[in-house]
Amino acid sequence: MLLTRRLMLAAPLVPAVQAAAQSPPAEPRVVPPRPLPAPDTISPQLRAYVAPPPAPGWNFVPQTAEAWRGFVAATAQAVMPDVSALRDGFRLTVDSTRIGGVNVFVITPPDIPPENRDRVLMHLHGGGYVLFPGEAGAGEGMLMAGHGRFRVVSVDYRMPPDHPFPAALDDAVAVWRALLAEHGPARMGIFGSSAGGGLVLALLLRARELGLPFPAAIAPGTPWADLAGNGDSRNANAFVDNVLVTDTGWIRAAAALYAGGRDLNDALLSPVNGDFTGFPPALITSGTRDLLLSDAVRTHRKLRQAKVEAQLQMFEAQSHAQFLLRAAPETAEAFAEIAAFFDRHLAR
Amino acid sequence: MLLTRRLMLAAPLVPAVQAAAQSPPAEPRVVPPRPLPAPDTISPQLRAYVAPPPAPGWNFVPQTAEAWRGFVAATAQAVMPDVSALRDGFRLTVDSTRIGGVNVFVITPPDIPPENRDRVLMHLHGGGYVLFPGEAGAGEGMLMAGHGRFRVVSVDYRMPPDHPFPAALDDAVAVWRALLAEHGPARMGIFGSSAGGGLVLALLLRARELGLPFPAAIAPGTPWADLAGNGDSRNANAFVDNVLVTDTGWIRAAAALYAGGRDLNDALLSPVNGDFTGFPPALITSGTRDLLLSDAVRTHRKLRQAKVEAQLQMFEAQSHAQFLLRAAPETAEAFAEIAAFFDRHLAR
Repeated sequence: MLLTRRLMLAAPLVPAVQAAAQSPPAEPRVVPPRPLPAPDTISPQLRAYVAPPPAPGWNFVPQTAEAWRGFVAATAQAVMPDVSALRDGFRLTVDSTRIGGVNVFVITPPDIPPENRDRVLMHLHGGGYVLFPGEAGAGEGMLMAGHGRFRVVSVDYRMPPDHPFPAALDDAVAVWRALLAEHGPARMGIFGSSAGGGLVLALLLRARELGLPFPAAIAPGTPWADLAGNGDSRNANAFVDNVLVTDTGWIRAAAALYAGGRDLNDALLSPVNGDFTGFPPALITSGTRDLLLSDAVRTHRKLRQAKVEAQLQMFEAQSHAQFLLRAAPETAEAFAEIAAFFDRHLAR
Repeated sequence: MLLTRRLMLAAPLVPAVQAAAQSPPAEPRVVPPRPLPAPDTISPQLRAYVAPPPAPGWNFVPQTAEAWRGFVAATAQAVMPDVSALRDGFRLTVDSTRIGGVNVFVITPPDIPPENRDRVLMHLHGGGYVLFPGEAGAGEGMLMAGHGRFRVVSVDYRMPPDHPFPAALDDAVAVWRALLAEHGPARMGIFGSSAGGGLVLALLLRARELGLPFPAAIAPGTPWADLAGNGDSRNANAFVDNVLVTDTGWIRAAAALYAGGRDLNDALLSPVNGDFTGFPPALITSGTRDLLLSDAVRTHRKLRQAKVEAQLQMFEAQSHAQFLLRAAPETAEAFAEIAAFFDRHLAR
């Protein structure tokens, strides 16, 4: 009896015991409630973001186009002080201009090292394909320009409710095509997080269709690679992640808004369903509490299955995209890794 | 008001908003109960292990040395059919012998390819430093020999209750020293999972103290790198992981039994507290539901901080060490990666 009871427990510790596998129960199992303290294994700066419960109103979902516009405006306004602090703190020059007919911000650090003089990184921002128009979306590009001392082109792509799919992808393609006319692809990389990470992957799938070359390397941060909501972490990290909290809130609504009726499993919406063969080296970043942890892990595995030189880096106790928090030393660490990765793979 | 409510949510999507960080609340937040279905994003073979709740008796903790011996005997007996199936399935030759005065199993595949003829992998098994004496501990070594077609030396190190720390470490050192007398370190790698992964790291810390050379590469699987129980996943994945389930059960008791009164934060017990400078390339494997996910992630980050070429691979929805399940295709995938990693870094 002891033997039988121990079977499941012992099974994985040596490669074991097909007999221990049970038929899946009719009902999914239920994880009991439990305390989730902020751990001592992260910086105090990060802990201040990890400790709190989801913000009040986390489950607010705009119901009309007008409500979405109010949500977009409020969130953009909320983050602008921090974007400005990044721009000023790194003494970045930020030029609002157009490339390939698309609004972009060209972000230039004050001290580009010789090896980066002829390199360009293209940035695709996050926000569920709906949030952070204008300079509000350029903050991650500023982190890269500041920490990595690269010239960054941050794409202010069109978004719903006015411009659903494929507007964002078309804009990304247009900027990539225009950059290719001026720079060799071997000297360029593409990065972005959340929806931006998904868009990096979708852009490469689309570039292949169009016969455009790939960049030398990509860095999709916690890519929203599955808009249909598949992936174990959508359940396992529900209410553990204090940023997105659940898959049933505004990101589900944003997915529908962006897709505009197209099948959410389409690889240009959910690139984890695409063919990654021939993709350039990729560095994927996520956190252990990330609601989209499975998107990151599944993307990494799928890249590896396609023989791509893909690397995964994870940060302790971080919820969705918390490697972008300006003040945490973990953010500097993440971007130092991404910068070193691009430096290793981009021609000079 | 909307602006304020959105602040935390928007914050991480662009690098944002120091103001949103709140003082840690007096009480830790509580994650509510929630369903945890087995996802469709894994193989049917793996799903049969992922779906069930923790096995009955998961929280059994032996209270006496005699009870531990019964636990050890029962778990060893439980896994032996699967170990035998591995041995026979891969047509492995398994020799029980002694190296450096320590009991080992030398595992030889029937078809060693030319590039592996002069290479040796040393294996340190898991089981909380207490479980799986004898051939019951050699299953992971058989997976490596079978999938990777390497010669493997699996160390049957001494364990509590009869032999607490540093017996296991001393045995690992003795075997490593003896192997060094016969083989160049550039042609050797060391691997193992759970307690075995921690022991791989502790062995390298100890080798440095003794002036012994490092192997060419290591592959610690879900290393039990923090015996004191630090790390966010000990809380975040409690009851999500259906293998270890919580940090308060038998593994906490096993840590105390192994340490024998020594400080659990000692780097030779909890190697995440050690200095990884100069370590060889490392590939770390874990799963998204792993109770020890934070051990894997913190070890990876600490290796990277020490400029080690360290890679992380994670498997969707797997609890602790479920990349060792014999029948799942994910296991073949994990070991193909580990084998390719050793092939890349070991001299021929």
